[in-house]
Amino acid sequence: MINIAVLGYGTIGSGVVEVLNTNGDSIRKRAGDKINIKYVLDLKEFPGDPIMDILVHDVNIILNDPDIKIVVEVMGGINPAYTFVKEALLKGKSVVTSNKELVAKHGAELLNIAKERELNFLFEASVGGGIPIIRPLNNSLTADEIVEITGILNGTTNYILTKMSDEGVSFDEALKDAQALGYAERDPSADVEGHDACRKIAILSSLAYGMQVDFEDIYTEGITNITDVDIKYAKALNASIKLFASSIREDDENIYAMVAPMMIRANHPLYSVSDVFNGIYVRGNVIGDVMFYGSGAGKLPTASAVVADVVDAAKHLNKNIWTIWSSKKLELVDIGSVKHRFFIRLNKDKETLAHIKELFGEDIELVQVVEDELAFITPLITENDMKDKKEHISGLLGSIRVRF
Amino acid sequence: MINIAVLGYGTIGSGVVEVLNTNGDSIRKRAGDKINIKYVLDLKEFPGDPIMDILVHDVNIILNDPDIKIVVEVMGGINPAYTFVKEALLKGKSVVTSNKELVAKHGAELLNIAKERELNFLFEASVGGGIPIIRPLNNSLTADEIVEITGILNGTTNYILTKMSDEGVSFDEALKDAQALGYAERDPSADVEGHDACRKIAILSSLAYGMQVDFEDIYTEGITNITDVDIKYAKALNASIKLFASSIREDDENIYAMVAPMMIRANHPLYSVSDVFNGIYVRGNVIGDVMFYGSGAGKLPTASAVVADVVDAAKHLNKNIWTIWSSKKLELVDIGSVKHRFFIRLNKDKETLAHIKELFGEDIELVQVVEDELAFITPLITENDMKDKKEHISGLLGSIRVRF
Repeated sequence: MINIAVLGYGTIGSGVVEVLNTNGDSIRKRAGDKINIKYVLDLKEFPGDPIMDILVHDVNIILNDPDIKIVVEVMGGINPAYTFVKEALLKGKSVVTSNKELVAKHGAELLNIAKERELNFLFEASVGGGIPIIRPLNNSLTADEIVEITGILNGTTNYILTKMSDEGVSFDEALKDAQALGYAERDPSADVEGHDACRKIAILSSLAYGMQVDFEDIYTEGITNITDVDIKYAKALNASIKLFASSIREDDENIYAMVAPMMIRANHPLYSVSDVFNGIYVRGNVIGDVMFYGSGAGKLPTASAVVADVVDAAKHLNKNIWTIWSSKKLELVDIGSVKHRFFIRLNKDKETLAHIKELFGEDIELVQVVEDELAFITPLITENDMKDKKEHISGLLGSIRVRF
Repeated sequence: MINIAVLGYGTIGSGVVEVLNTNGDSIRKRAGDKINIKYVLDLKEFPGDPIMDILVHDVNIILNDPDIKIVVEVMGGINPAYTFVKEALLKGKSVVTSNKELVAKHGAELLNIAKERELNFLFEASVGGGIPIIRPLNNSLTADEIVEITGILNGTTNYILTKMSDEGVSFDEALKDAQALGYAERDPSADVEGHDACRKIAILSSLAYGMQVDFEDIYTEGITNITDVDIKYAKALNASIKLFASSIREDDENIYAMVAPMMIRANHPLYSVSDVFNGIYVRGNVIGDVMFYGSGAGKLPTASAVVADVVDAAKHLNKNIWTIWSSKKLELVDIGSVKHRFFIRLNKDKETLAHIKELFGEDIELVQVVEDELAFITPLITENDMKDKKEHISGLLGSIRVRF
């Protein structure tokens, strides 16, 4: 029997308990031993819930119990999660977490502590919910140099964009709907401003390149400026708008990362990733394109990934699973030099086509959808160039990067 | 330095050499040591190729060299691959293979020999080419009871069906094109008759359920009966036709497996898997739907998976990676009791709608595409029922299972 403790009895914590109860027999076979939840830590009480018998309010009971071999941290946030996790590792316990903030910020350090002590620090559930992506990156795509990782990593924004596209509603309406369904928080900024996706692509990039990618360095733009009119244009262009979180190796030395809405067409592997689903596209220099798809959030899919990590930790007690993520900082390329095509919308009364062609050249692709607007797609242009040119445009109504 | 030997210098074997040369530095970091190809075994000579220096014609040189820790078998076929692989394991060497026939037939036995000796027998490349699916099934989806695995597992047939759909050409024309491009063999029967997909779903099913699924037990139907007229109907139905290889757990006791063409619509996760690409959809009882997508064949993608296995074997010298695949046979449910809806085409002159409704009930869904044909989709019906009813139908032109 392998004793574990679960820190946090919220959505994911209760999912972990449920999964271990539901699939106990097969999990026992795969882990080679019974996984027993000895403690659940939470500040609250849960009258009537069977976990009351094992509920504790003091983390030290867990940290000081030598029976506990694996600690599952599903509290979220940096504090006190970081302190608890670090302490657990220092006390010789492996840790499994779903906490993207913690992993993005302290992943390298915690992995290193685990490695020095022949323990494991596992975090499959921190990106893409139930989708296996951390372990495939770490153990399966090892023959490749990763050239690109692009993910639709936030289910809330993907739901909102899908809803806007399917039903023609505004951003605000779609957001309200997502909140009513429990897909979006009352304060939705972490999702809709792209911060959640930013942390996740920071984690994936750190693993892919083996060095610390600081999420603060990643250019991040959310979906709050996307309007129903933009969606109409996208449809006219046979495109759809997705919130992309990308890191791309332009050559050996130059890697850039960004989170931003992107117009894509049906030939992109992530085109059909809709609703709350996530998808992660990886391009390697020998494997070519691979894509992973599934539920990026939700109680049971996320708990499934957490429990799979518990099984792996149980199979590797006292044996570190090698993960390459050095604390050495990876200096990302300044986003200013990165090139995209841009879709641009203008107020026709305030700007002339002649002036636009003067700015962007004759090769712009005009798009006629709304009568009193001038809309077009630029040739490839750097972010810096685009920024400069925007200052010379009058009546700008919107601008979205294009990947076709 | 870890010495390995490559058995077979065909497409994949030369790909393995190429990948190890191209990405040697990063592979060394991930494996923790340099991977050195000490021997390549092949009956042929390769004048001018640098591997001539390490080419041997006698497998015993490899088997009897205690320096060789990992043997890569990429010859294909059962004989002599089986003998060589078994002998290598018995001599204390881990084995990596891309050989689906070998794995489907002898996987359980070879895994067992490896386990007894704290070695590894790894076969990521045997299914889905470069797509990570064996390792995710084995290490990532461990918290779930697998409810369904459905794959588009054969790139050749997927290319043919895509070509027929995109260009309206006949099966024969599409096949010729696939042969001209090197996607199909001169004798294409293993692909177009579904035997290749059958072996692959046998492997995935054995891993998912932890018991031996014999490929001979799997009902297998290829794509040779699919015509350009069927494709026209599919389009009219907003559907596409894919060769599905499925194993589905209907309840705890009842698992069935089959390979057959299937009509699906855009809401199926595998709908957008086109051309030579493969996709594998997995449904677990807690994770829900996940999907893996990528190049299912080809020199470098397959070699990428082989080399990733070599890296894993190198990281686990003298330490078996636990894989549950017992030699105990899993008795599949007789396919006769499995239910599908069927799309049926008839010669209008030989059959009446009244008689069809008598046979299938009033709930059939009529499809009008070709003037002198009567076409419809049946309600859910068992395979046995369908077989019986077919004997009472006159002028049958085609029948395809429907998954919507």
